[in-house]
Amino acid sequence: MGTTRGFLIGRFQPFHNGHRQLVEEIATEVDELVVGIGSADDSHTIRNPFTAGERIMMITKTLESVGITTYTVPIEDLDRNSVWVSHVESMSPRFEVAYSNNPLVIQLFIEAGVEVRQTTMFNRDDLKGSEIRELMIEGGDWQQYVPQAIVEVVDEINGIQRIRTIHRE
Amino acid sequence: MGTTRGFLIGRFQPFHNGHRQLVEEIATEVDELVVGIGSADDSHTIRNPFTAGERIMMITKTLESVGITTYTVPIEDLDRNSVWVSHVESMSPRFEVAYSNNPLVIQLFIEAGVEVRQTTMFNRDDLKGSEIRELMIEGGDWQQYVPQAIVEVVDEINGIQRIRTIHRE
Amino acid sequence: MGTTRGFLIGRFQPFHNGHRQLVEEIATEVDELVVGIGSADDSHTIRNPFTAGERIMMITKTLESVGITTYTVPIEDLDRNSVWVSHVESMSPRFEVAYSNNPLVIQLFIEAGVEVRQTTMFNRDDLKGSEIRELMIEGGDWQQYVPQAIVEVVDEINGIQRIRTIHRE
Amino acid sequence: MGTTRGFLIGRFQPFHNGHRQLVEEIATEVDELVVGIGSADDSHTIRNPFTAGERIMMITKTLESVGITTYTVPIEDLDRNSVWVSHVESMSPRFEVAYSNNPLVIQLFIEAGVEVRQTTMFNRDDLKGSEIRELMIEGGDWQQYVPQAIVEVVDEINGIQRIRTIHRE
Amino acid sequence: MGTTRGFLIGRFQPFHNGHRQLVEEIATEVDELVVGIGSADDSHTIRNPFTAGERIMMITKTLESVGITTYTVPIEDLDRNSVWVSHVESMSPRFEVAYSNNPLVIQLFIEAGVEVRQTTMFNRDDLKGSEIRELMIEGGDWQQYVPQAIVEVVDEINGIQRIRTIHRE
Amino acid sequence: MGTTRGFLIGRFQPFHNGHRQLVEEIATEVDELVVGIGSADDSHTIRNPFTAGERIMMITKTLESVGITTYTVPIEDLDRNSVWVSHVESMSPRFEVAYSNNPLVIQLFIEAGVEVRQTTMFNRDDLKGSEIRELMIEGGDWQQYVPQAIVEVVDEINGIQRIRTIHRE
Repeated sequence: MGTTRGFLIGRFQPFHNGHRQLVEEIATEVDELVVGIGSADDSHTIRNPFTAGERIMMITKTLESVGITTYTVPIEDLDRNSVWVSHVESMSPRFEVAYSNNPLVIQLFIEAGVEVRQTTMFNRDDLKGSEIRELMIEGGDWQQYVPQAIVEVVDEINGIQRIRTIHRE
Repeated sequence: MGTTRGFLIGRFQPFHNGHRQLVEEIATEVDELVVGIGSADDSHTIRNPFTAGERIMMITKTLESVGITTYTVPIEDLDRNSVWVSHVESMSPRFEVAYSNNPLVIQLFIEAGVEVRQTTMFNRDDLKGSEIRELMIEGGDWQQYVPQAIVEVVDEINGIQRIRTIHRE
Repeated sequence: MGTTRGFLIGRFQPFHNGHRQLVEEIATEVDELVVGIGSADDSHTIRNPFTAGERIMMITKTLESVGITTYTVPIEDLDRNSVWVSHVESMSPRFEVAYSNNPLVIQLFIEAGVEVRQTTMFNRDDLKGSEIRELMIEGGDWQQYVPQAIVEVVDEINGIQRIRTIHRE
Repeated sequence: MGTTRGFLIGRFQPFHNGHRQLVEEIATEVDELVVGIGSADDSHTIRNPFTAGERIMMITKTLESVGITTYTVPIEDLDRNSVWVSHVESMSPRFEVAYSNNPLVIQLFIEAGVEVRQTTMFNRDDLKGSEIRELMIEGGDWQQYVPQAIVEVVDEINGIQRIRTIHRE
Repeated sequence: MGTTRGFLIGRFQPFHNGHRQLVEEIATEVDELVVGIGSADDSHTIRNPFTAGERIMMITKTLESVGITTYTVPIEDLDRNSVWVSHVESMSPRFEVAYSNNPLVIQLFIEAGVEVRQTTMFNRDDLKGSEIRELMIEGGDWQQYVPQAIVEVVDEINGIQRIRTIHRE
Repeated sequence: MGTTRGFLIGRFQPFHNGHRQLVEEIATEVDELVVGIGSADDSHTIRNPFTAGERIMMITKTLESVGITTYTVPIEDLDRNSVWVSHVESMSPRFEVAYSNNPLVIQLFIEAGVEVRQTTMFNRDDLKGSEIRELMIEGGDWQQYVPQAIVEVVDEINGIQRIRTIHRE
C-alpha cells in the first residue's frame, strides 16, 4: 500500500502550540500520522499532571482540523529500553518514519532499523511543557501557548487546581 | 459541557460487522464514543492474534464513516479486577455510560458507580470473533463478515499466515 | 523474646467454620498467629470473589474472640515460587512455624528451612470454600457453615449478587 | 451498619509517638481505624529500612491499648497514581473518611470522591521519621520518641545494625 | 567478525539426551551457540520443576564437552509475544540464526526478520521432557534418558523428592 | 559434592581489568565462580549503556582463560530488597560464599544467612566503571583499562557511538 505513515512521540504535558505546528509540518511529509503519548501510565505528578485519557482528548480535538488521518495512541512506560521499540510498534499502526529530537529515542529507533527524521521545528520552537506547567502553577497566562481545545479540557477536569495541589508536596 | 460520551470495550479479534452495527446503534444515543481495545498487550495467540496497533488500524478506518467523534484506545490487561475501572478511566476520555453485555465488566462498572447499558444488538448478532478466526484458519469465507478495512489490514500484515502458524502449536 | 508465632496461609474465600476451628487448634500450640490471606490481589472471580480488604474484615471480626494475638496480613501473588517464602516473610511478623497441608507450600517452606506442621484438622474438616461458594450461587444455606461476622460482611458488600453476576460469565 | 471507619496512610519508618497521638485523636472521631502501611514492598533502604512485616509488629503491639478496633494493612506501591485509590480500597476494610496531610494523597482521594480530613496533629507534631532514622544512624537517643513496642521490635530484628550498614552505601 | 552464532531456546525440564544430540548437530553448523533457558522465572511446578540456576548447572556441565563455545542464558517470561524477540536479543549475545520447531517461536522470529532453521532432530527424537518428569514421579528409570551431569544435579538438589511433593497437589 | 562455588555480583558496565584481577584472586579460593550481571534488564542509559547479552559476551570471552569453571548469569532487577537474595539464588547455580564490598548487598546476604567475603582487591583497585564510561564519551584512552575482548565487543556493537548519543540527552 502506498501510504506513508509517520510516528511522533511525546509526553504532551500539555499539548501546546509548538506541538501543533510540528504536526502540521510533518503532515506535509506523510499521508498519516500516529501521535504516541509517552508515559501514558503516569499522572498526578508535577512532570506528568494529566492522565493518558485527558491527553487523548486534548490531542484528538486539536488535530481534527489537520488535513491528514491521525491516530492518538497511549504508550505505557516499560522501563526497558531494549524492548521499547517493539512495544511501540505493537501498540501503533505500522509506520515508516519516526520523528524525534530526543537522543535516546533516536538511538533506539536507529538500532532497530527504523528511519528517524529530526525537524528544525523542535529547535525553532522555544516552548516547553515544563514552562507551561510553571505558568499554570503560578497563575500566569498559559492559555496563549496552547490550542483552545486544551484550555477546555484543563477546565473540564479542574486541571489547574490539580497541578497546584500536587505542587505543594 | 453537554457532551455525552459512551464507552464500549471489546477485544475486537477482529472487528467485524456485528461490532460496526453495534457502534452505529450506540451512535444514536451518545455524542461521542470511546472504543476500548481490551487485552491490548496480547497478540500472536489463537485468542488474540492481532496486536493493539493492528486493531487500531482496523477500527479507526472503519469508524471514519460513523457520524460521531470516536476515540480508539488500547487498554492493557492489569489482571486486577479491583482496579480495572480506574485503569480504564485513566486511559480513556471521560465517559458517562458504558456499553457491555459481559457480566464481569457490568459488575465492575456498577460497583464503581458507572452507568451500564446493555443492548439487544449483542444478542441479535450471532457473529463471534472466535468463529471468524476459525474461518481464517480453515480457509473459509471470513471476509463477508467484516468491513472492507479489516480485510485490507489483515492482508497488509499477512494475518492469515500468522494465525495459521500459531494454530499449529 | 520467648514468643512462638505461627503462620497460616489460605485464600479464605470465604473464611468458614473449618478455618475457625483450625485457628483455635493452632492457638493451643503458639503464642501468636499470623493469618496470611493468599491471592490478595485477586477478586471478582468465581474462585476469588472477595477482595483482600473484605476478607480482612471477615477474619479480624471472627478472630477477636480467639484468646491469642492474631495478625491478618494480605499476601499478593508474585507468581514466582522461588521467591515466595521471602515475599511472605517480608510481609509478615517473624514466625517460627508454618501450618499448611498444601504440598507446594510445604515444599517451599521446607526448602527455605522453615518448620512446617500439618494438622489433622485439615482432613477432618470436609468443608471447602468452593462448596460454600456453590451454595451462594445456587441460593443454598451457606450461612450455617460460616461465622456470623462473615454473613454480615457478605451482606454489607452485597456479595451474593456479586458472585452470581460473575458466575453468569 | 452504623460503623464509621477511618483510614490513615503512612510509611511508619518507624511508627513513633507522633503517630500514636494522631491515632488517639482520630479514635475520638471514628468507630474503627484502618492503618495503611505505604511502600509495603520497600525495605532495607535509608528511607524505608523496615519491612512491612516488621512495621505490622510495631504498630499492632502499640495500638492494642487504643480503645477502638484497628486494622493494620500493608499497601504495596503500584506506581500509578490514577489507580492508587482503587488499590487501597481493595486492600482495606471499607472506610468512610481518610486522614492525610499529604497533598498528593489528598488530591487522589478527592478526585475519587472520598472525604479527606486534615488534622492539626500533623503540624503540631514536629517529629519526623527521617529525624528518628538519623538518630538511629548516629547513635542518638531515638528511643525517647517511639513507643516501647517499637524499641523491642527494632531490637529483635537488629534494626540499628541494619540501618547503619545500609547508610554506608 | 566472521563468527556465526546460533540460538536455541527451550525450557529444558530437564535437559536430556535429545537436547544434547540437537546441540551437537547444531554445533556442526555454527561457530558458537547460545542456549536460552525459557520460563526462567518459573520453578517448583509440575511443568517447570527446576529453577533457572539448576538448569544452568545441568546444561553448562553437559556442554563442556561440545567442541564450540556455548553460552547458557536464562530468559524470564515477559508474557508479551510482541516484544519477546527484543527481550531475547537483549539478554543474549548477538546471534544470526535461531533453531526451533515451535510454531509460535518460529512466527515471532520470522516477523522480526531473524532466520529460523528447523532440524529433523526435533522430530527424530521422541524423547520429551514431560515423559521424563513422569518417570521421575513414578520411580521409573529416567536416568537413562539424560546426561550424567543431570543425574548429579537432580541428586544434589533432591529433585525427585521435590517433583513428587509438588505432584501431590 | 566437595565443590565450593563463589558468587560475584556487579553491573560490569563495562567489565574491566580490575574485575578480571578480582576474579583471578577469587579463583584461588573457590572451585567454581558464578558472575552475576546486575541490572540485567537495563541498557542504553549513561549508567548502564550495555545490554545483558553484550555484557555476557564481554565476560565469557575474558574468563575463558581463568583456570576455573565460571558461569555468567544475568540478574534482572526486582526492586524489592527483601526477596533479592532468593531471586539471585533461583537464577544462579548454588553457591557457598558471596563476594561483595557493597553494604546493601552484604547486609542482604548476611540476613539471609549467606557467608560474605570482602576482598582488599575492591579497594586496591581504583578503576571504576563510571570513569571508563567517561573516557568513552570524551574520546579518551579507555582501551588500556579493559581486557581485549571488551574492546572487540564494544567495537562490534558500535558502543562508543551509542554511549555518546545517549549522553547528549
